[in-house]
Amino acid sequence: MIGTLSIVGLGPGPARWLTPEASEALCAATDIVGYATYVGRMAERPGQVRHVSDNGAEIERARHALSLAVSGRQVVIVSGGDPGIFAMAAAVFEAIETGPEIWRALDVKVVPGITAMLAAAARMGAPLGSDFCVINLSDNLKPWPLIEKRLALAAEADFVIVLYNPASRARPDQAKNAFAHLRKYRAATTPVIFAAAIGREDEQVALSCLGEADPVPVDMRTLIIIGSSATRIVPRANGAYWVYSPRKTERPAC
Amino acid sequence: MIGTLSIVGLGPGPARWLTPEASEALCAATDIVGYATYVGRMAERPGQVRHVSDNGAEIERARHALSLAVSGRQVVIVSGGDPGIFAMAAAVFEAIETGPEIWRALDVKVVPGITAMLAAAARMGAPLGSDFCVINLSDNLKPWPLIEKRLALAAEADFVIVLYNPASRARPDQAKNAFAHLRKYRAATTPVIFAAAIGREDEQVALSCLGEADPVPVDMRTLIIIGSSATRIVPRANGAYWVYSPRKTERPAC
Repeated sequence: MIGTLSIVGLGPGPARWLTPEASEALCAATDIVGYATYVGRMAERPGQVRHVSDNGAEIERARHALSLAVSGRQVVIVSGGDPGIFAMAAAVFEAIETGPEIWRALDVKVVPGITAMLAAAARMGAPLGSDFCVINLSDNLKPWPLIEKRLALAAEADFVIVLYNPASRARPDQAKNAFAHLRKYRAATTPVIFAAAIGREDEQVALSCLGEADPVPVDMRTLIIIGSSATRIVPRANGAYWVYSPRKTERPAC
Repeated sequence: MIGTLSIVGLGPGPARWLTPEASEALCAATDIVGYATYVGRMAERPGQVRHVSDNGAEIERARHALSLAVSGRQVVIVSGGDPGIFAMAAAVFEAIETGPEIWRALDVKVVPGITAMLAAAARMGAPLGSDFCVINLSDNLKPWPLIEKRLALAAEADFVIVLYNPASRARPDQAKNAFAHLRKYRAATTPVIFAAAIGREDEQVALSCLGEADPVPVDMRTLIIIGSSATRIVPRANGAYWVYSPRKTERPAC
């Protein structure tokens, strides 16, 4: 008998952001497939088989999970954050489209999760309170000129801009390139939020501005939120700040 | 003694998408403030005071909650989906910025939730798998020409486009206006997903295309996802479809 495949979002890390639906899917699985870091976060369960792979190689991981599922296993692929946002879900459907016909008969379930931008935004206030766009800076997936074009159009549209995967060992300067490009369109005082490892022990959140963003350290785990022209900084009594993007384009007179 | 204010995301509705952090915040509150529909979904707790208000009037609701919190109460404002995405969090920080100084001394916590687009995308596959933008079509918050400009630039950038709040009694034709505008830039075959009441008993998900999207009924609870030029439709063995947006701009040759 054919099995099932669930693609489960673990959220940014801590258990307090793991939905009950995700917890149940993890409990019910016969096989867990995933990147070692994510699988390693989960408690081992008797009788449950773990299939751990390196980062990258998403399509191979997806094919492995699909093969296990058609063989009759109840398979879960784990994904950080939400599986649909620059994570495993698109890889699974790409594998299905280019794979054997029988894979299209599988019951495939996507279990949503708290994606990094929601947790990062929550830490600082409400920077995503108005229209925004979300760009994956990883240029091993698309050419840099396309990224540059999207940044320019997003700036012209005055979207709040969220950047996922802003740097890696192979591409350490992608974020700086993006900032240099955005400075042509947006004021140096535009708020820029850097967030890493949100909700975990080594969490780091920093508020900077477009004119001074270059020296802030960035790696592949960092998420960056760049304000629109309307994004506001509100000083708190304790010396820290909140950042929010107003729902209206005109702030109220009150 | 001064109290606290948490702005809590309830997710799209069902308990399986309510995070443990949100559940704990709801339990610990002395006062729950919110739109009647959201407050009505929650179990009543002895000793907990409910402050129910109509939809709209977000700033007044935020001020009421802030006043309660500075008076020493442990206040929760409930919000559908994620509080930071076109919901209560921006209203609270706007109220703080324009309110009495003492509000800036409050401990304000934003508790993230599953926002509607994540749940809707999960139902259909992975339509948000590549760069996307998120636009609130509600033009009581901004002028229609600005929305039109953002739609045009988003189309030129080839973003997947997510539309929140596409229609209301006062503005029944906003979605049709948006489709008409997008047809100038994007093919009639572009996949369009309509999702309403995701995860609830009256859930509705429909797949259409830009050329045929006009007759699909739309109300304020509907979320719309419009594919990019790269978004793919994959036929399932059962006659239904998955929709996904590939991570790479070029699909693999395999």
